[in-house]
Amino acid sequence: MRKGVMRPGHVQIRVLDMDEAVKHYVDLIGLIEMDRDDKGRVYLKGWTEVDKYSVILIEADEPGMDFMGFKCVDEATLDSLAADVRKLGIDVKEIPAGDLPNCGRRMQFVAPTGHVFELYATKEQTGKWGISDVNPEAWPRDLKGMKATRFDHCLLYGDDLDGNLELFDVLGFGLAEQVLDPEGNRAALFLTTSMKEHDVAFIKHEEKNKFHHASFYLDTWEEVLRAADLITMTDTPLDIGPTRHGLTHGQTIYFFDPSGNRSEVFCGGSYYFPDHKTITWKAEDLGKAIFYHTRELNERFLTALT
Amino acid sequence: MRKGVMRPGHVQIRVLDMDEAVKHYVDLIGLIEMDRDDKGRVYLKGWTEVDKYSVILIEADEPGMDFMGFKCVDEATLDSLAADVRKLGIDVKEIPAGDLPNCGRRMQFVAPTGHVFELYATKEQTGKWGISDVNPEAWPRDLKGMKATRFDHCLLYGDDLDGNLELFDVLGFGLAEQVLDPEGNRAALFLTTSMKEHDVAFIKHEEKNKFHHASFYLDTWEEVLRAADLITMTDTPLDIGPTRHGLTHGQTIYFFDPSGNRSEVFCGGSYYFPDHKTITWKAEDLGKAIFYHTRELNERFLTALT
Amino acid sequence: MRKGVMRPGHVQIRVLDMDEAVKHYVDLIGLIEMDRDDKGRVYLKGWTEVDKYSVILIEADEPGMDFMGFKCVDEATLDSLAADVRKLGIDVKEIPAGDLPNCGRRMQFVAPTGHVFELYATKEQTGKWGISDVNPEAWPRDLKGMKATRFDHCLLYGDDLDGNLELFDVLGFGLAEQVLDPEGNRAALFLTTSMKEHDVAFIKHEEKNKFHHASFYLDTWEEVLRAADLITMTDTPLDIGPTRHGLTHGQTIYFFDPSGNRSEVFCGGSYYFPDHKTITWKAEDLGKAIFYHTRELNERFLTALT
Amino acid sequence: MRKGVMRPGHVQIRVLDMDEAVKHYVDLIGLIEMDRDDKGRVYLKGWTEVDKYSVILIEADEPGMDFMGFKCVDEATLDSLAADVRKLGIDVKEIPAGDLPNCGRRMQFVAPTGHVFELYATKEQTGKWGISDVNPEAWPRDLKGMKATRFDHCLLYGDDLDGNLELFDVLGFGLAEQVLDPEGNRAALFLTTSMKEHDVAFIKHEEKNKFHHASFYLDTWEEVLRAADLITMTDTPLDIGPTRHGLTHGQTIYFFDPSGNRSEVFCGGSYYFPDHKTITWKAEDLGKAIFYHTRELNERFLTALT
Repeated sequence: MRKGVMRPGHVQIRVLDMDEAVKHYVDLIGLIEMDRDDKGRVYLKGWTEVDKYSVILIEADEPGMDFMGFKCVDEATLDSLAADVRKLGIDVKEIPAGDLPNCGRRMQFVAPTGHVFELYATKEQTGKWGISDVNPEAWPRDLKGMKATRFDHCLLYGDDLDGNLELFDVLGFGLAEQVLDPEGNRAALFLTTSMKEHDVAFIKHEEKNKFHHASFYLDTWEEVLRAADLITMTDTPLDIGPTRHGLTHGQTIYFFDPSGNRSEVFCGGSYYFPDHKTITWKAEDLGKAIFYHTRELNERFLTALT
Repeated sequence: MRKGVMRPGHVQIRVLDMDEAVKHYVDLIGLIEMDRDDKGRVYLKGWTEVDKYSVILIEADEPGMDFMGFKCVDEATLDSLAADVRKLGIDVKEIPAGDLPNCGRRMQFVAPTGHVFELYATKEQTGKWGISDVNPEAWPRDLKGMKATRFDHCLLYGDDLDGNLELFDVLGFGLAEQVLDPEGNRAALFLTTSMKEHDVAFIKHEEKNKFHHASFYLDTWEEVLRAADLITMTDTPLDIGPTRHGLTHGQTIYFFDPSGNRSEVFCGGSYYFPDHKTITWKAEDLGKAIFYHTRELNERFLTALT
Repeated sequence: MRKGVMRPGHVQIRVLDMDEAVKHYVDLIGLIEMDRDDKGRVYLKGWTEVDKYSVILIEADEPGMDFMGFKCVDEATLDSLAADVRKLGIDVKEIPAGDLPNCGRRMQFVAPTGHVFELYATKEQTGKWGISDVNPEAWPRDLKGMKATRFDHCLLYGDDLDGNLELFDVLGFGLAEQVLDPEGNRAALFLTTSMKEHDVAFIKHEEKNKFHHASFYLDTWEEVLRAADLITMTDTPLDIGPTRHGLTHGQTIYFFDPSGNRSEVFCGGSYYFPDHKTITWKAEDLGKAIFYHTRELNERFLTALT
Repeated sequence: MRKGVMRPGHVQIRVLDMDEAVKHYVDLIGLIEMDRDDKGRVYLKGWTEVDKYSVILIEADEPGMDFMGFKCVDEATLDSLAADVRKLGIDVKEIPAGDLPNCGRRMQFVAPTGHVFELYATKEQTGKWGISDVNPEAWPRDLKGMKATRFDHCLLYGDDLDGNLELFDVLGFGLAEQVLDPEGNRAALFLTTSMKEHDVAFIKHEEKNKFHHASFYLDTWEEVLRAADLITMTDTPLDIGPTRHGLTHGQTIYFFDPSGNRSEVFCGGSYYFPDHKTITWKAEDLGKAIFYHTRELNERFLTALT
């Protein structure tokens, strides 16, 4: 949190059929439905998140990610960071408060990889779902499916990774992990503004603005197993897992929503502080970097994007 | 234990290079080396096993399984079961005590699938390894690698499954689970003489006497993860996992010893009593039956045999 | 299963208020309500059990255990075991089929410690709850509370442990573990007729026929944690745990039903085969034998009996 | 990290006998011995920590904590925070670089509760122990005992909690959780400068400068069980656990070093961001706040201090 960006605060995901999507994100992943708006958007969150929502589902003709937002410590930080981003030659648009319901003004811009990001500092706080701020119980008893605790990060594919590294450095993110090819070119960036090993990550890809997955945090490896079981019980398309990543060392499973967007649930993984040296994975060992156990990429992981 | 057969007591596995094999079974899987004999055979066991050994490694020109032995409650049971087996028209050979060191006489025969099995009732008991019979601690502190607790079962491939079912019924085994094709032919048998969901299993295959894997028991799904990590750290060839089986619902990982023999470590899984109805998996759903999460067979699982 | 007794099949527990009791055993422990009879008795089971029920709750003026029943492999075994028990000078009463609904005839007798046991061979089989016999899923999605998988064993307090040891030896049970005082007197017996480290256990106590607890099996140590959390969330009186036993090395938590009967949920623990040497704990180390971590008994564990 | 303080960086613990202390912190807890100095001090760390050491053991006549240090992002932050602390009327002493080996200058002061704290920005970085910065394996294979991953926090007892709250607010810490009595007085402060629910905590106590425990992080609840087992196997005095805290919801076990200093190993627990509302526990429910499962304090927890 070197410059006042706290965490991934929300992501807007395009889905082809809202009813099917809600079954996936609410009944299967276990996010809580918090609201719907008059445009038909559905607002969700994981039960440990204190803000009103973190995932926005919107019906559209094709799947993918509309934008990802980061929450900052205060409104002043928004202006200061917007100024810093503009200095990079990136246009920043201010969207007024209320455009997203219960959310303050947002400073929105397109990253060099073509993805839309935004910063905001204010969102209605409803507190953790299902437990009190006073004498809180350990967890709420009415969780569904995988019982995902929070929206954690996104992995995005795009072309200009050097540009994004410069942008996120300006936003105070650290480069926790990277993949380097023998010529020293970066093939992947794992960027963080917190103790988490990644708040957003990018993998090099010829097209701009591709969405690889949104990720949700589980408490334990046993929850990852139960998530895997639920994927089977619900005939949900599996990508890969349960397994461990080399990058971040998190324990993970990937699967697809009914629109073709990939979801991840994971647990564990390394932690980061700003004085940590960047961890490097060699591009020639990308298989092991991504899938620590098989040490092989599956084609789908590299090409199924939305 | 309907007729006095207690459990899988030992398996003799052929390996191409003993030093490499010991690294696999002792340093990686965590079996304890208990003895070597003048033929160069190495005797191993898991730490919870009370008999002196359960895995016998023998150097040979090609990998595979020489024989699998079941321990019976007493010597009288050997004679009675041998008589029952002979009634099936199967020749039973008595091998005198001491042929395997520290082991009593063995009644050996070839099953209809071509695999060699034997029954015995006596083996030197050295007790659980590393803990006492009096005020035992929960586990020994000096275990290596995956810390496998016991030799658990074998999965074998062969042709005459109906013949084997008849044989193992005579030995008092129950058919805990099976795979049936639409014509009602059995494609797999999971047989047990204990509370375990399988003490030996067979999958239909055109060749006789093929060895699919020997399996070792771990305590928890977290140990399966650590096993997977160790497979990677030691550059051991992985087959598949961590995952769950449909058949037995055990949580598992498969990998190969340096000779090409497959090993499994697993935990969990269903339990069996003699009044349990046989669980049936449909052959058309064999992918899910074998690999519950991917719901797809990998070719290697069906064809990499020794 | 040396003589045809398979497992603990049922226990009848006296409760002061049925509605409160059902909340405890169904909503909290997660047993399934399978039936009620015209005497107001409620029939429950864990989801992995294939018979129709295993726990019978009956309203009464004081708490405790009415009887514990063991299921045998067939009706002929009942007569043979009844004859063996009578040879010990113990009276055996035959209760006709249907006295317990959906249950065959039962051979009932009073053990030297004053507890009522019975043997039976027939009970309606409804299969595992919530999953099919064909292509079964890994677990049912609608389980409640602690999601207990089965009724596992009882621990009973009474005076004549030597008499009970003789009785259960006649029934084919093995003495998996014992507590011995310096004079060689037995202070505790852990008896089993299966691979489980105990199907019934006795602790020396001056009174006859006291009930210490009924125990239910959980899959993992993480489930024990969740059970502990639920005990707190429901303001259920805790006895002790989460912890590990020395005896059996199981991982456990104890708590009380609204009538004062103690319940246990546990996981893990050692396994037994008939050739295992009895494990001995020294009476002077009883604290560690019972509670492996604290190495101290709590007074309640020894005196809160029903 | 509102004002540039990153994390607890080190703690100096007084021990009566260094050889015994090393057995406790290295062989049992699993910290790595990194160095010794000519004053006989021993320097330790958890394997995931990138700086050279985090725990300093020093032989002394009585146990307790000498000081706790927090690492800041850079040297300029030290001066700025020292100035802020001095504005509170607290004397700040600058200790030159090298006074602690491999450590830069430290700004040291006494908190209102009488505890000595210090800030520093520079320490030799040796990287995570046992794994590489390039293609790192998931964990090192040669860890001992409980395999503690890092020094995590201290809990300290003292009188002037309001004074400490003001001090740590100036240092940029947030109040993640608190205990309030009915009059609104704070009985406990859980303070954090990271995503962790506490980097340092204070409990109200009449004496100044008492040390309750130093805490080390484990990965899983299963590791907490193994820690508990090791405490028993090594005859280490147990305080309480395994259990869960109400405050932070971490899963924990407490035990004592040979000098009487309390140690904690724990896993899990809530996470914190600066916009989180402070969680409040009522002083009248302090039992549940501290020990979520027993809902009772043990006297030792409140009075065994060093």
